[in-house]
Amino acid sequence: MDIKEIQKRLGDFAEERNWEQFHSPKNLTMALCAEAAELLELFQWLTEEQSRTIVDSESDMARVREEVADVFIYLARLADKLGIDIEREVFKKMALNEKKYPVELSRDKATKYNRRQERKGTET
Amino acid sequence: MDIKEIQKRLGDFAEERNWEQFHSPKNLTMALCAEAAELLELFQWLTEEQSRTIVDSESDMARVREEVADVFIYLARLADKLGIDIEREVFKKMALNEKKYPVELSRDKATKYNRRQERKGTET
Amino acid sequence: MDIKEIQKRLGDFAEERNWEQFHSPKNLTMALCAEAAELLELFQWLTEEQSRTIVDSESDMARVREEVADVFIYLARLADKLGIDIEREVFKKMALNEKKYPVELSRDKATKYNRRQERKGTET
Amino acid sequence: MDIKEIQKRLGDFAEERNWEQFHSPKNLTMALCAEAAELLELFQWLTEEQSRTIVDSESDMARVREEVADVFIYLARLADKLGIDIEREVFKKMALNEKKYPVELSRDKATKYNRRQERKGTET
Repeated sequence: MDIKEIQKRLGDFAEERNWEQFHSPKNLTMALCAEAAELLELFQWLTEEQSRTIVDSESDMARVREEVADVFIYLARLADKLGIDIEREVFKKMALNEKKYPVELSRDKATKYNRRQERKGTET
Repeated sequence: MDIKEIQKRLGDFAEERNWEQFHSPKNLTMALCAEAAELLELFQWLTEEQSRTIVDSESDMARVREEVADVFIYLARLADKLGIDIEREVFKKMALNEKKYPVELSRDKATKYNRRQERKGTET
Repeated sequence: MDIKEIQKRLGDFAEERNWEQFHSPKNLTMALCAEAAELLELFQWLTEEQSRTIVDSESDMARVREEVADVFIYLARLADKLGIDIEREVFKKMALNEKKYPVELSRDKATKYNRRQERKGTET
Repeated sequence: MDIKEIQKRLGDFAEERNWEQFHSPKNLTMALCAEAAELLELFQWLTEEQSRTIVDSESDMARVREEVADVFIYLARLADKLGIDIEREVFKKMALNEKKYPVELSRDKATKYNRRQERKGTET
C-alpha cells in the first residue's frame, strides 16, 4: 500500500475544494470517530457468530467495506496533517504490545495489561 | 507500507495468545471505536488552533501517535478477518467522493452530499 | 430525577472553574462520545452472556456505574447549553419509534426501519 | 423527569417486539456509542462558535434533539438492564468531581486531574 500516494491524493482533494479550513486535527478526530461508529452500528445487533458470517452477505459487506475505507481515509488525513508516519508507529506499538502481553500471561485472557493484578484480585 | 505483513504479524500475535476467540468482527469494531475515541479525547478541550499546534508538544504527540497506531492496528485486523483489501476500497471510495463532491458544488462547503438540497432550502 | 437541579449544579461547577469557555456544544459532543466509548471498552472483549452477568462483579460494576454517570453528565450539560428539554424529546422519540417499528413488522427483528425492504430483498 | 416510567415504557416496547434478545448490555453500549457519534457527526465540521449558534437553525436543532433523545434512550435502557440508579450515580460522580477538580487548581484549565503533574512538567 502506498500510503504516501493516498495522502497526497486526499490532500489534493481537500485543497481543490478549499477544505483545509475544515481539516483541523480536532475535526478530523471527530470525523474518524464518527466513521468508526458507523462501522460499529453495522454490527451492534449481530451476535458474534453472525458478525463472523457477515462475509456471506454481499449487501452487508458492501457497507462494511465502504466504512472501512472511510475510517482509513480520515486516519491517513489526520496522520498527514500531524506529520505522523503510521507504519513506523504501528511497528513500534506492535513491539510494545509484545512486551505488555507476554504469551504466558496473556493466553486466553483479554485482560488489559494494567488491570491484570486487579482482576486476579477479584477472582481469588 | 506493507499492510499484508502487518496483518500477518497481528494474526500471529493473536494466535500465539489464543486470542482469535476474542477477535470476532463485532468485537474488533468495538475496539476500533474505543481507540478512535481515545484519540478524540486528546483533542476534546483544545481549540481548533491548539489542535494544529499540538505538533509542538512532544508529550502530547507521543500519545497521539500511539492512539493513531492503535486505530490502525484494529482496522487492519478487522479488514484481515473479513477479507477486505483496504487499499482497493480506499481507491474506490476516493473515486466515489470525487463524484459526490464535485469542486464547483463543494468549494468552501462541508455539507454532506445528501443534505445539499436541504441546507440550500434552509438558507434561502 | 430532577434533571433541572443536576443541570444547575453542573452549570455552577463549570462557572466556578471558568470552564464555560471549554463547554461549547461541539466540545461537549466530543466528551460525550469519549465517555460512551469508555463504557464500550468495558464490554468489548466480553461475550454477550458475560455482559449480562457483569452485575455479579462489584469491581466491574463500579467502573460501569461511573461511566454511565459520565455519559449522563455530558448529555445533561449539552442539553442545557442548547436549551433542549430531554424528557420531552424522549417522549417524542418513543412515540415515533412506536410508529416506525410496529409490533407485527418488528417482532424478533433488529432491522432498521429504513432497511427493511433491502434486507427482505437479500433474504429472498 | 420520571426515569423509572421511561425505563418501564422502553422495557415494554422491547418485550412486545421480543427484542430483549438483542438488548444485552454489550449490544446496548454499542448502540449508545453509535448514537453519541451521530450527535458528534452533526458538529464535526462546525467551528466552536458555529456550534453555539446552531440553536438558530430549526432544521439542525431538530436533528440534534432527536440524537440527544436516542442517546438518553439507550443509556436509560442500559442502566435498567444493569440495575443502575442513574440519579444516584450522577450525584456521586459530581461529588467526586468536586474533589478531583478543586477550584484553585482547575480555574481556566481543562487538564485531566491525573495529568496535572505531567502537563505542569512540560510547561516548565
